[in-house]
Amino acid sequence: MSTKPRIAFLGTGLMGQPMAANLLRAGFPLHAWNRNADKIQPLTVLGATACATPALAVRDADIVITMLLNGEIVETILTDIEPSLRPGQMVIDMSSIAPRMARTHAARLRQRDVDYLDAPVSGGTVGATEATLAIMAGGSGAAFERAKPAFAAMGRATLVGPNGAGQLSKLANQAIVAITIGAVSEALLLAKGGGADPAAVRTAITGGFADSRILNLHGARMLTGNFAPGGPIVTQIKDIKNILDEAADIGLELPFVQLAYRLFQEAADNGLGGLDHSALYQHLAMMNKM
Amino acid sequence: MSTKPRIAFLGTGLMGQPMAANLLRAGFPLHAWNRNADKIQPLTVLGATACATPALAVRDADIVITMLLNGEIVETILTDIEPSLRPGQMVIDMSSIAPRMARTHAARLRQRDVDYLDAPVSGGTVGATEATLAIMAGGSGAAFERAKPAFAAMGRATLVGPNGAGQLSKLANQAIVAITIGAVSEALLLAKGGGADPAAVRTAITGGFADSRILNLHGARMLTGNFAPGGPIVTQIKDIKNILDEAADIGLELPFVQLAYRLFQEAADNGLGGLDHSALYQHLAMMNKM
Repeated sequence: MSTKPRIAFLGTGLMGQPMAANLLRAGFPLHAWNRNADKIQPLTVLGATACATPALAVRDADIVITMLLNGEIVETILTDIEPSLRPGQMVIDMSSIAPRMARTHAARLRQRDVDYLDAPVSGGTVGATEATLAIMAGGSGAAFERAKPAFAAMGRATLVGPNGAGQLSKLANQAIVAITIGAVSEALLLAKGGGADPAAVRTAITGGFADSRILNLHGARMLTGNFAPGGPIVTQIKDIKNILDEAADIGLELPFVQLAYRLFQEAADNGLGGLDHSALYQHLAMMNKM
Repeated sequence: MSTKPRIAFLGTGLMGQPMAANLLRAGFPLHAWNRNADKIQPLTVLGATACATPALAVRDADIVITMLLNGEIVETILTDIEPSLRPGQMVIDMSSIAPRMARTHAARLRQRDVDYLDAPVSGGTVGATEATLAIMAGGSGAAFERAKPAFAAMGRATLVGPNGAGQLSKLANQAIVAITIGAVSEALLLAKGGGADPAAVRTAITGGFADSRILNLHGARMLTGNFAPGGPIVTQIKDIKNILDEAADIGLELPFVQLAYRLFQEAADNGLGGLDHSALYQHLAMMNKM
């Protein structure tokens, strides 16, 4: 008989499905719900119990994990399951939503004696499949300790502060990604415009202070013109909007983030919204008639 | 008897001295000159011949390497040695100067049948000492082949295009460094301002898409407030000015570089010009009254 906590996993889409699969492989009893029930099937093969509604899935769970598309859907599902939650249960929202929404959820659930962690991730479907996600958790130390075994089955977790801090950390991550894409775009355009070989320049500067994951991965996309998403520009704009909303709440001026917002919006207006966010390079090239 | 090319090394300061030392250890016969002759002494122990003037140093050299503080000094020294240069000799300028100056030097020396490579480096004094410099070379393929054994004694060299392309590559490197410092600064300020633990956030996002050398090295400086240079803000401003001058020559608009220029200048106006360029964080914090 397993002594591992029983998990309800709500949202088994592109990210949630491989995450739930890794929990099952690690031996966690798991009840799964998804809006489109077809996506639960591969998990039942691994031992998951498919549930027809979120409320049914959470009934016998120790830990409820949500992995949903956006803040509005998280809000809807949490409202839906709230009457079914019992004191001592715990909710971990691994979706990417606004920090202020995470803080609201945490406060509301606390009144029912239900613990809450916001724990968004970075690493994409590859990280979800290989259980190498960077998990950024906000909440109490006790809640984090309780969630640790489940986190360990999905990636590497860090407690970054109280509720909301996990989502804030994800926004910090997205801010760096957006601006670094701008940095690499402009550097490669400068190299190309001045008559250097941009591919050789990228090779030459790799390993120096300019080195980054973005230079390696997104820089390669810029050189080959492969802008199939990946993370599309419209999603990048939504993320930056969340950053600026949070910054406005705090009263913080972030000039590089503001510039990134303007340029990614221009790129979308320029018809590039569906392309990978590295296509900011293409927008800047077109802007410069290159 | 050595079959290695004889090298004249002009400028054995903070960077030049360990670079020349590595050439000597690799077995290159080396004549050295420096404005302050004291700095040649450690090299004579390794077998270097100290010379009283640049013209004396280059007389019997196959390859002349210059490693000087800025474009004006390179101009002066090249003008000084030009009458002493013979056809078939080769000049490698490893200083960081404007691409347009490099192109001018190359054209002038070509008329004397003297080959020229612009080959600035990235990696600082640590890279110079450990022979791990990223060397970005601009010039002909034949000149690059001829310089390869000497480059191999100092680091990893890449031919990035014709004359000027090496300096352009260095500017592309500096553009990424300046903007990424801005990205990491704003991300950590957002984390701190919103109540997360910025050190934990930096740890959490390392290894994801936001990962970079700047996040690791300069991010650590921002967290501890250690802004002892390193690369001071005033030098960063000079580099960005060179990027914008080159961009203007090409007719290129680089909005992130322009913003970096404005913010680093504001930081200098704010009294931070002598601090490491990671102190852009401090300027943005002060701007936001944090």
